[in-house]
Amino acid sequence: MAEVVVARGREGRLARGHVWVYDTQIAQVEGNPQPGDVVDVVTEHGALIGRGYFNPRSRIQVRLLTREDEPIDREFFARRLDEAIAYRRRFYPLAQGVRLVFSEGDRLPGLIVDRFADVVVVQFLTLGMDARRKMWTELLIERLEPRAIVERSDVPSRRLEGLEPRVEVLFGAVQGPVAFEENGLLFEADVLEGHKTGFFLDQRENRQALRPLAPGARVLDAFAYTGSFALFARSFGAASVTAVEQSHHAVQRARRQAERNQLGDIEWVEANAFDELRRLDQHQERFDLIILDPPAFARTRRSVEGALRGYKEINLRAWKLLAPGGFLVTCSCSQHVAPDQFFDVVAEAAEDARREWRLVESRTQAFDHPILPSVPETLYLKCMIAQAL
Amino acid sequence: MAEVVVARGREGRLARGHVWVYDTQIAQVEGNPQPGDVVDVVTEHGALIGRGYFNPRSRIQVRLLTREDEPIDREFFARRLDEAIAYRRRFYPLAQGVRLVFSEGDRLPGLIVDRFADVVVVQFLTLGMDARRKMWTELLIERLEPRAIVERSDVPSRRLEGLEPRVEVLFGAVQGPVAFEENGLLFEADVLEGHKTGFFLDQRENRQALRPLAPGARVLDAFAYTGSFALFARSFGAASVTAVEQSHHAVQRARRQAERNQLGDIEWVEANAFDELRRLDQHQERFDLIILDPPAFARTRRSVEGALRGYKEINLRAWKLLAPGGFLVTCSCSQHVAPDQFFDVVAEAAEDARREWRLVESRTQAFDHPILPSVPETLYLKCMIAQAL
Repeated sequence: MAEVVVARGREGRLARGHVWVYDTQIAQVEGNPQPGDVVDVVTEHGALIGRGYFNPRSRIQVRLLTREDEPIDREFFARRLDEAIAYRRRFYPLAQGVRLVFSEGDRLPGLIVDRFADVVVVQFLTLGMDARRKMWTELLIERLEPRAIVERSDVPSRRLEGLEPRVEVLFGAVQGPVAFEENGLLFEADVLEGHKTGFFLDQRENRQALRPLAPGARVLDAFAYTGSFALFARSFGAASVTAVEQSHHAVQRARRQAERNQLGDIEWVEANAFDELRRLDQHQERFDLIILDPPAFARTRRSVEGALRGYKEINLRAWKLLAPGGFLVTCSCSQHVAPDQFFDVVAEAAEDARREWRLVESRTQAFDHPILPSVPETLYLKCMIAQAL
Repeated sequence: MAEVVVARGREGRLARGHVWVYDTQIAQVEGNPQPGDVVDVVTEHGALIGRGYFNPRSRIQVRLLTREDEPIDREFFARRLDEAIAYRRRFYPLAQGVRLVFSEGDRLPGLIVDRFADVVVVQFLTLGMDARRKMWTELLIERLEPRAIVERSDVPSRRLEGLEPRVEVLFGAVQGPVAFEENGLLFEADVLEGHKTGFFLDQRENRQALRPLAPGARVLDAFAYTGSFALFARSFGAASVTAVEQSHHAVQRARRQAERNQLGDIEWVEANAFDELRRLDQHQERFDLIILDPPAFARTRRSVEGALRGYKEINLRAWKLLAPGGFLVTCSCSQHVAPDQFFDVVAEAAEDARREWRLVESRTQAFDHPILPSVPETLYLKCMIAQAL
């Protein structure tokens, strides 16, 4: 097998369990591996660090699949897939919408697999996984017996791997959004045209966290997208729900989902959330529960500063808009914004708004997005539940 | 009203919302306040920082009750109590065992109120609250209509306030432990003789977190105390439960509680947990779920280093004892050990044990122990749920 030799003193986070080998860490590559091939990653003394797939076009030249001396073959991947499925069966025995594979979090770097009812959506984020799409298609058919498999490899990060975006139905047939149930409500995953894989499963538990907060509350969902927080707030007994969303298409889907669940009396506002928060503040509107679940403000490390300003602004407005005793559910899905940074921004916003507050709970992503602590990138979603005093 | 003047440049954490005024922060005290009196805390320019009760014998000379210019009277305390009760009604509408007041977390510094069925247990941790015990007894009778109120002010920290320990039945009558129900199991709160107020409510949600982890598992509860984790593990379908506890008295209560819930087949081991973990490791025993909920190893800031060594040792043993795919629920209730410190110890222990692992969830204390972020001392319980890979 070809070998990638890590330069002495350059082990960095690899030594503490990380699975990415950057070009800058590599002393030499031996044995002429082809893009996508499995290689051994070794120290200069020849000791095995791990085994993973190779991509000379990426800054991350190897992603480790294992630290053991074991064959990387179909059986290996099938075993990892089975472990990932067993994990979800444990936490979500009845869920129709579930992330079955979460890349590094399931020790399958570069692979995302979501299931919505009987439709599977897959993303190949790296060349190593892309090179194995036929095998994955076969494995997913074999293990999950789906009606259809949709590939949604239309993610910008594929460019870093030298890959083009790709959207394709890999198996079976699917037309339009796929209906599925989550904790008693009916939703649609827009597997062909929606953001990412068509629905944000990572907020599942955070949506349920509204249950004690919503009864009788005037609710504002400021970045509503297709309304999943808004719908649960209403179904948990909110007195009123105002849902703000800029995309006309998203509001249409949100309205359709609300009707399907007989939650017709949500007020949908087609507007920019920043503008609408400012307007509501100027009109001294008050809410008992505000949800802030904006899209990722920081998509790169360089954009963190601007992102923090954005989080600061919306959280400042929210603190001002909260009635005494009101609750704030505030999220950040920007991987480059660390939990402590996000906490500090929310706290500073409260200070600027002169609000005393307490922390009800500090949450992250749903259980089907497990965190590999040695790969900090696997923790990306922050969700703070706070109360204005 | 008497005034406590904070020295210029010494506002420290007060400026960011903390509620403790240390002797070293004070420039002067005007108006001769008596111990327990309410005083205004002001800047050298006379601006109001807040209002709280005074204790010249303590290093913390004032604990703020409010930052508003409002009277601190019976109505004030009644309002704060009502807010605290309303908060619990929201999160635990049906709970029989609940912490109704959590000191600073409910903006009532120095007051702890727990309810177990119809018996109330109260702790006065500070002189300011101790001086108001008659009022509190009246308010608690009025608002909660309990069968009995027990004072369990036998906590070492009272010495720092110049107070002696005190255990007394303040109202009604109570004999022996009080039976109550938590999430379907029957427990006893040993309100007269148990640790603290007689039962650890702060782990309520963390006990429920065993639900997906326990089915079919060989479980080890290493610091079982009266068995609340062990009982839930068994009731959630564990294949076997081994519960280790050094105190004979605690094991007796644990056995009684298990029998009462018809969970008789738990193996109780009367032993020191450190020794037993070592012994199990030497015998290469394996478990699928291990719970580590030790007593606080660090009771003061100076004992943190030793505490971290203790956490390291038990977590190292636990990692070694876990079968592949097994889960670790590991806790620290040491206020002086920060969440990041505890995380690092657990991670280092995994590294030393050569275990790859992932983080299922990072939890803290139950909802009825709310966290005031400006008072970091209110976050004391850490509970990590991890999986060995």
